[in-house]
Amino acid sequence: MRSTFGKNLIVSIWGSSHEPAVGVNIEGIPIGTEIDMDALQAFMNRRAPGNSPFSTKRTEADIPLPVGGLKAKAPGIMVVTEDCISLKILNTDVKSSDYKSLHHIPRPGHADYTARLRYGDEINMAGGGPFSARMTAPLCIAGSIAIQMLARKGIEVCSHIYSVGNIKDVPFDPVNIKAPAADFPVLDEGRGEKMKEAILEASNASDSIGGIVEAAVVGLPGGIGGAMYDGIESALAPILFGIPAVKGVEFGSGFNASLLKGSENNDAFYYDDQTDEIKTRTNNHGGILGGITTGMPMIIRLAFKPTPSIGREQDSVDLEKKENTKLTITGRHDPCVVVRAVPVVEAAIAVGLMDIILEQTPSK
Amino acid sequence: MRSTFGKNLIVSIWGSSHEPAVGVNIEGIPIGTEIDMDALQAFMNRRAPGNSPFSTKRTEADIPLPVGGLKAKAPGIMVVTEDCISLKILNTDVKSSDYKSLHHIPRPGHADYTARLRYGDEINMAGGGPFSARMTAPLCIAGSIAIQMLARKGIEVCSHIYSVGNIKDVPFDPVNIKAPAADFPVLDEGRGEKMKEAILEASNASDSIGGIVEAAVVGLPGGIGGAMYDGIESALAPILFGIPAVKGVEFGSGFNASLLKGSENNDAFYYDDQTDEIKTRTNNHGGILGGITTGMPMIIRLAFKPTPSIGREQDSVDLEKKENTKLTITGRHDPCVVVRAVPVVEAAIAVGLMDIILEQTPSK
Amino acid sequence: MRSTFGKNLIVSIWGSSHEPAVGVNIEGIPIGTEIDMDALQAFMNRRAPGNSPFSTKRTEADIPLPVGGLKAKAPGIMVVTEDCISLKILNTDVKSSDYKSLHHIPRPGHADYTARLRYGDEINMAGGGPFSARMTAPLCIAGSIAIQMLARKGIEVCSHIYSVGNIKDVPFDPVNIKAPAADFPVLDEGRGEKMKEAILEASNASDSIGGIVEAAVVGLPGGIGGAMYDGIESALAPILFGIPAVKGVEFGSGFNASLLKGSENNDAFYYDDQTDEIKTRTNNHGGILGGITTGMPMIIRLAFKPTPSIGREQDSVDLEKKENTKLTITGRHDPCVVVRAVPVVEAAIAVGLMDIILEQTPSK
Amino acid sequence: MRSTFGKNLIVSIWGSSHEPAVGVNIEGIPIGTEIDMDALQAFMNRRAPGNSPFSTKRTEADIPLPVGGLKAKAPGIMVVTEDCISLKILNTDVKSSDYKSLHHIPRPGHADYTARLRYGDEINMAGGGPFSARMTAPLCIAGSIAIQMLARKGIEVCSHIYSVGNIKDVPFDPVNIKAPAADFPVLDEGRGEKMKEAILEASNASDSIGGIVEAAVVGLPGGIGGAMYDGIESALAPILFGIPAVKGVEFGSGFNASLLKGSENNDAFYYDDQTDEIKTRTNNHGGILGGITTGMPMIIRLAFKPTPSIGREQDSVDLEKKENTKLTITGRHDPCVVVRAVPVVEAAIAVGLMDIILEQTPSK
Repeated sequence: MRSTFGKNLIVSIWGSSHEPAVGVNIEGIPIGTEIDMDALQAFMNRRAPGNSPFSTKRTEADIPLPVGGLKAKAPGIMVVTEDCISLKILNTDVKSSDYKSLHHIPRPGHADYTARLRYGDEINMAGGGPFSARMTAPLCIAGSIAIQMLARKGIEVCSHIYSVGNIKDVPFDPVNIKAPAADFPVLDEGRGEKMKEAILEASNASDSIGGIVEAAVVGLPGGIGGAMYDGIESALAPILFGIPAVKGVEFGSGFNASLLKGSENNDAFYYDDQTDEIKTRTNNHGGILGGITTGMPMIIRLAFKPTPSIGREQDSVDLEKKENTKLTITGRHDPCVVVRAVPVVEAAIAVGLMDIILEQTPSK
Repeated sequence: MRSTFGKNLIVSIWGSSHEPAVGVNIEGIPIGTEIDMDALQAFMNRRAPGNSPFSTKRTEADIPLPVGGLKAKAPGIMVVTEDCISLKILNTDVKSSDYKSLHHIPRPGHADYTARLRYGDEINMAGGGPFSARMTAPLCIAGSIAIQMLARKGIEVCSHIYSVGNIKDVPFDPVNIKAPAADFPVLDEGRGEKMKEAILEASNASDSIGGIVEAAVVGLPGGIGGAMYDGIESALAPILFGIPAVKGVEFGSGFNASLLKGSENNDAFYYDDQTDEIKTRTNNHGGILGGITTGMPMIIRLAFKPTPSIGREQDSVDLEKKENTKLTITGRHDPCVVVRAVPVVEAAIAVGLMDIILEQTPSK
Repeated sequence: MRSTFGKNLIVSIWGSSHEPAVGVNIEGIPIGTEIDMDALQAFMNRRAPGNSPFSTKRTEADIPLPVGGLKAKAPGIMVVTEDCISLKILNTDVKSSDYKSLHHIPRPGHADYTARLRYGDEINMAGGGPFSARMTAPLCIAGSIAIQMLARKGIEVCSHIYSVGNIKDVPFDPVNIKAPAADFPVLDEGRGEKMKEAILEASNASDSIGGIVEAAVVGLPGGIGGAMYDGIESALAPILFGIPAVKGVEFGSGFNASLLKGSENNDAFYYDDQTDEIKTRTNNHGGILGGITTGMPMIIRLAFKPTPSIGREQDSVDLEKKENTKLTITGRHDPCVVVRAVPVVEAAIAVGLMDIILEQTPSK
Repeated sequence: MRSTFGKNLIVSIWGSSHEPAVGVNIEGIPIGTEIDMDALQAFMNRRAPGNSPFSTKRTEADIPLPVGGLKAKAPGIMVVTEDCISLKILNTDVKSSDYKSLHHIPRPGHADYTARLRYGDEINMAGGGPFSARMTAPLCIAGSIAIQMLARKGIEVCSHIYSVGNIKDVPFDPVNIKAPAADFPVLDEGRGEKMKEAILEASNASDSIGGIVEAAVVGLPGGIGGAMYDGIESALAPILFGIPAVKGVEFGSGFNASLLKGSENNDAFYYDDQTDEIKTRTNNHGGILGGITTGMPMIIRLAFKPTPSIGREQDSVDLEKKENTKLTITGRHDPCVVVRAVPVVEAAIAVGLMDIILEQTPSK
């Protein structure tokens, strides 16, 4: 498998950044499932470029167009009529000239060099080719549909910018998740303002900056996932690491758990009298024990490296002349991928979870 | 897939901690491959319990016994004669009585509760069942064989204890990896001594402590892996998160990349005149760009939570009486899983890498 | 897996008969592979409806249009530039009114009834939905590309109409395959004329008629396939049985082998002095022993049932009224699917073989 | 995948004919499932060699021994306690000397030649290696367990010898299946006697003879399977063609459908007043329409070639001397594999069906 993820909800991404369209084929959504196209569009808008000063200047409407397997049912509502549905979004603001010189001078931190090693010279790398952040747009189509499917089961996915550089938002309270107010998704607006400053500062310095996204899943029943390689972390990690620029993934207390004693990290069980459910008083386990959900909120954090495309001159090599050279990248790039990555993270989690849930509870 | 990992090197783990044996079936090793049984035994000894004061008191010889698909060729050398080979190790030091009370009082931080949610009452949880660290012994058999296969291609896997609690070893120099001297695998012996103290201290306090393992792969050619969901991080992450107690996985600069500017994190390319190869001067990318290897050392870090089995009294619930209760765990447990996890991490990486390499360059 | 076939050459079919388009996404073709678009169109024409009196009256040009992953290289030549390529053909001659009454009165021999049992009422069954022979058009796109890839390795796929009803063509000489002259693909033209008569006779009687396609693969090297569930028959059978109306598949002497003695069915080995190759004097094994190719021509036969859509009144049930009823089908249907199935069989074999060959000898 | 079949009920076969044991690992049986060990043994006895004059003289008790994942619950009853269970049977009557000369003179009709092409010289071909009919013994363990699981859902698998050479049993009445009385499983005892004569005649002539097995599945609900490559024929065919010596597989009227008119082959639907179910008056479709079950009995026929190991001198090649030579096979072989293949066919169908059913209705 390559541009395809999943065993039960099978998401295949096609097209590329500088072709007429990018799209997604999705197999495994139960026939008859309704899709709220307005909610889908609203979700796409969260990721769409050109919506804020913190993202690339490329402007794309990112309107999902049905290609197959869908039928209009009511205003704004489509229904799935085939096992494989297909949707696409058009690429309207393409400037391929920006990428000419990159053909033989690989950008540091990018896949230009490795793509050629792996796939040879004929690979379409215009706009980043399969490594482009634009490929996350079709993932968001699938993700938004998965989020709608999860919502019908009472499961919600939300996330916020946990950090930009060394500026941290307040973390989720892991036993009592509160979704951030949208727009610039942070829990503490004041820290959000500081993040914006840091991004603009990097941008003005022809530089970029990294960050962390923290996501939570609420309402997930216990008993999802499985032992060993059937574990929920093993199932989610491939789609999470498939998001461009992700360098680390952690669940629950994550790397911080390495600093703790067992007596600190263990979450005590108790009966919640009001709901008659078994819960834990703390949630260092992030809703997962032994690869299986406990019913507590699932907590995931993803580290994003700073955008490798920066305006400063950098050292590289000329693959044709076989010598060292300097490279200055032009083109339009996000100074901090984390902002637009927030919905992408939610999309990836939702697709991964629905894939697992459909395995355990197939609708048809 | 459940107790099975892989598409080309298919590793299936069977048996369990308190049965007569645990074993592994491995499909996909080319017929004719030789296995150095002494090297295999030496590798197993690194993980075997009872070898040090820092591990459980359970004593197991962990001698891999061929069950099928192998033929003796020379002293200490067996050769693969079938597509599916099978090996087992006997469980000789089993004390099931230690686990009696756990049946209805789940241990905090353990899978006791979730296993029952997922699989029902009949699941064999003696000794931890499929969640037991003992299941990493058969993984180490497969891993040691994969390490031997990699070595014949000039690829080496090594790792060290990066931290125990807040005591850190010096990290790998990511452009120039030096394998630690074995035994207690750290790069700085002085810090290793402090780690031992911290472990004994936790142990004496009836507690446990977490830590981090850092691994490196050297000699890996560029061009391994692929774009999107074919990326090497997506391919390795499931087997890494399949190791018990792992809460986080990062590649290259990992979570630290989130703190950096693009100008700091990007690794400049250059031609190495002596080898005529393209290299990078720094190695924040950890040998991977766009999911594909660059030829620089691969760097991976895994966060381990503290062993949840601790001697102190803890809060839990009684699943039969449906009420809150106290639990004191007896039995024999590692105060810090990180020490014995070092070879397990190497095994998991080697199996994951061979699975990818066999896909790209099948021997037969 | 559903509308997707393959592990290495991954063919995903989308759209449906009465939507604007049907298409195919193909993953795993090595980047840089050239596609002869004229040869592709010529192949599509062999399957296209409306080209002869022996097929449905529906007329479709079936022109493959690139959607993604392809770049024009020279006149009539496109080159693969991404891992996932996508092509589509438009549906231009759709008459959905023909299918109105079928919604609640399932056609005997069709999937109308079972589709509803499995997928519920919302499934799009216009034109046969996913069960439509039209879904074999995108398979033929993938098949033609696979045939081009095989040809570059010296491997050729050909086939002929082995029988229509009880009228048989001469069979292939299995040790010395001669491809039929195209058009109406039989080896003996006189018998071809009798087949045409039988089809017209069935058509005039508002009936349909079954038949058998015999295919051969020449130039396949020995050693392709594998033992047990890796056998070449096990690998090809799913895509062959995925062709609509196929009720039986046999390899080599097939069902006829059941009538033979070992001394009759065994194919004696000999050294061919001229080529210094090991061959067999007869070819009852159809080029496969133990699931692995011998280098002799591969022989496959597929039995097609008569088209279930016939003009005569038939007994059925009314799913709404829950009572027995009569049904007379209108619409445009092939009186004998075998004629147009010939290229479909070649396409399916070629896709299945390339999937296996890419596993054993990945190009990149 | 190689010696492993399945996605939900994952059956992995290990060991080989001339090693100490052959065994099977099975993943995906719901924890808590009970296995009737007496019924399992009775099933094994049907396949065991040495039980009749119509089979090889090799004598094996074929007693399934639990290796892991099973716990005794009551006399003759074991219960599944892990996701992966493992059982083995010992090889007690091995005569490897019979196979010495075969190393460099491949037997006509056998995999000796192709195995070496594919896997090289080191492959263990003693007793036929992975191609040995002995590998169907562990499949029968899995099959018997699957049959027990199906029986609890009211689904029954049965089969009979449809033909030996040109001697045919009466076929199943496809709308009203009657299981044959065991022992020599035919519907018409008189014809069974003639089959026995034909087998003994072939055996006395140092020859062998082919035949056909016809199987039926009764009680299968409608709606199992799926469209396109999810079809039930596509799902079952790989495991059916994985049975050694199978050269053809057909469903329902199969190859005979090619001789029929649509008006003859279509099965009229009707409401069965007594059960209020939709049924068909005839059953040419063999219980499957569009890859999905209708609820009518499923009918499958498999063609077996005559055993290639015959006592007569045959033409072959000497791989070392690279010249033509003569070969006379000694050793113990079935003169007709069909007799012992009957339970193997049932096992393969049951495993394949449970794999599909677990996908659609996972128990846990």
